[in-house]
Amino acid sequence: MKATVRIMLKKGVLDPQGKAIGGALHGLGFEGVGEVRQGKVIELDVPDGTEEGRIRDMCEKLLANPVIEDYKVELEP
Amino acid sequence: MKATVRIMLKKGVLDPQGKAIGGALHGLGFEGVGEVRQGKVIELDVPDGTEEGRIRDMCEKLLANPVIEDYKVELEP
Repeated sequence: MKATVRIMLKKGVLDPQGKAIGGALHGLGFEGVGEVRQGKVIELDVPDGTEEGRIRDMCEKLLANPVIEDYKVELEP
Repeated sequence: MKATVRIMLKKGVLDPQGKAIGGALHGLGFEGVGEVRQGKVIELDVPDGTEEGRIRDMCEKLLANPVIEDYKVELEP
């Protein structure tokens, strides 16, 4: 089965990469775009029946930095 | 409204970052994890009523590299 983890900087943590993308969009003429934030998405092939807790464990130990990042786990059967 | 763009390397394009994450997970004792792929997610605040085509336009022009990357646009009202 496939697990997808989406990792974003927490609200309030400065995101210079997102800001740069926003600036570039304005420069290309895409007006009206407000805040832009960039994060990571990680897709993992995991054994069938893997529980969300195990994926969250991977996030806490390796995939995310829980001090400054939030993560969301989705499991697809 | 919020638009979310998810950008992944196309199937068949080597993803060394994903491979490194997979290797690190094995090293930490998370057995059974198969292929790992890493991508980007970009959240944009866009004016209400923005059409998906406009976001796809942003992807083609700036956010993604359509030669090696696939992207998926989601609009949340």
